[in-house]
Amino acid sequence: MVALGDRENLFIGIDGGGSKCRASILDSDNRVLGTGVSGPANPLQGYAQAIGSIVHSAMLSLSDAGLPPEMLGELVAGVGLAGVNMPNLYNEMDAWAHPFKQMFLTTDQHSACLGAHRGGDGAVIIVGTGSCGYASINGEARFLGGHGFPHGDKGSGAWMGMEAVKYLFLALDGLTEDSRLKDELLSVLESADAQQVFECIAGKPSSYYARLAVPVVEYAEAGDPVALAIVRDGASYISDLANKLFEMNAPRLSLIGGVAPRLMQWMAPQVVERVAEALDPPEFGCIYFARQCVAEAANGSNSAIEGDEKALFG
Amino acid sequence: MVALGDRENLFIGIDGGGSKCRASILDSDNRVLGTGVSGPANPLQGYAQAIGSIVHSAMLSLSDAGLPPEMLGELVAGVGLAGVNMPNLYNEMDAWAHPFKQMFLTTDQHSACLGAHRGGDGAVIIVGTGSCGYASINGEARFLGGHGFPHGDKGSGAWMGMEAVKYLFLALDGLTEDSRLKDELLSVLESADAQQVFECIAGKPSSYYARLAVPVVEYAEAGDPVALAIVRDGASYISDLANKLFEMNAPRLSLIGGVAPRLMQWMAPQVVERVAEALDPPEFGCIYFARQCVAEAANGSNSAIEGDEKALFG
Repeated sequence: MVALGDRENLFIGIDGGGSKCRASILDSDNRVLGTGVSGPANPLQGYAQAIGSIVHSAMLSLSDAGLPPEMLGELVAGVGLAGVNMPNLYNEMDAWAHPFKQMFLTTDQHSACLGAHRGGDGAVIIVGTGSCGYASINGEARFLGGHGFPHGDKGSGAWMGMEAVKYLFLALDGLTEDSRLKDELLSVLESADAQQVFECIAGKPSSYYARLAVPVVEYAEAGDPVALAIVRDGASYISDLANKLFEMNAPRLSLIGGVAPRLMQWMAPQVVERVAEALDPPEFGCIYFARQCVAEAANGSNSAIEGDEKALFG
Repeated sequence: MVALGDRENLFIGIDGGGSKCRASILDSDNRVLGTGVSGPANPLQGYAQAIGSIVHSAMLSLSDAGLPPEMLGELVAGVGLAGVNMPNLYNEMDAWAHPFKQMFLTTDQHSACLGAHRGGDGAVIIVGTGSCGYASINGEARFLGGHGFPHGDKGSGAWMGMEAVKYLFLALDGLTEDSRLKDELLSVLESADAQQVFECIAGKPSSYYARLAVPVVEYAEAGDPVALAIVRDGASYISDLANKLFEMNAPRLSLIGGVAPRLMQWMAPQVVERVAEALDPPEFGCIYFARQCVAEAANGSNSAIEGDEKALFG
């Protein structure tokens, strides 16, 4: 059993995106007591699924920490979620009768930024299932890009998957060049023709498309021209996002998310050389956010939370 | 009241797409007795909505013909629907306990082709809410393009709307050139910023996006460079589809659907000059299909229906 400081709050940070939800329980010295990873937690794709993934990741973290499941109700949770920059989704999630001692909710951009710069000013670009930029400078939050799948989130895993599917249909119709990527995509989709591909992908969420980014990136790295065209287009957009965030005078910029490290090789070199390593992962940022909210509440002020909501929706 | 030949079947042709469902009742000399137009009838977007639109358009046609609503059960319906090239949607629609005397179901491509070439060999490209190509040559059916929204249907109204929304988000983020199209789109969407645009469009079906094709085409015609880039890209794809259908030796090719006449000005001239006027509208093709099925059934043969299913799914 983990020794806990007496009467002190035990914090869990939960970072939820379109494909995965990651949780970490930290002690007051930021030592990781336990971690857990579960499935998609973007409430835009499903409120119930997001809640299920949040609870699941928290329970896995407790188990990993050697703590009993009953302790869920003693955890103070900082939760950073994709999708909750939409006020209606924020309000819906915030109204959840959650099982934690307390829950503080913010966007995944905000928590990732707090983690990456250990609470200091800076900017992040998240490139995972989705993509988006965010800067926190002199207390002001700025959102850039994002906008969701399939109309936005360029450069993301889901976007790459969608571009790959568009290419695949053109190639199957004989309307564009053939490539090895075509055969690989058919193999991944276990399909032999356009009809079967359609039945695979119709109505699928962004997380399904994001899985197809794996062959796109791999084939691009192997020099496949079709895959290269896709990743270069995506990387160019992420470079544009970065330049825009630097224009806002972000002192540090970190790239976060599963796709980011693979995409950097095709980004503009003058952007890549200015990218700073994230100091801590997004789950840590979730905890920094929750601690900040608890501290300000203890000081008899609610300004941190109000300030955050203003930043979120202002 | 319309005088009906004794004991003869009264046919209704119903053509259902992503935005509208059009019905016509014809007499045996192909004179239009009545027509009706209702809402979306693509079962991929909703089985119940498609059925509702089919019945609605039929009731409007009866009323327009001065026929009593009770006559619905005496009509032999030929129904050509978008979406039913997917076997599961075809089977679901075909299992409908419909209110007609008889119902014969086929794809909207098949019925449009029968109408355009008055039952003869030929090809069609439908460019409306969606886009697709189809050829019927020597009894063999060939499908080209289509594949649905948002991953396929390039050049269609919904595709143009999606491209416009992608551009709009980039422009609102300051990541691409401004244009008058941006202001027009914001006005159509009654939005002032990216957040409001997102709330307008999130989760919307293809028919919603297709409405945005109207300003895109209008602004392209007025010379707006952003709108022009979108329509030229779409028109180039439709030209590619046409060339592929000519390669299959289609003796005639007609362009059908609400977007087609506006898009032709940007298509390849050598394609446009080979395009033939549709002889009859798709609703007529639906009736030709139904008459063919009834005639072959009367001859003690089921081969027309079997043949069609083979063409559909072969």
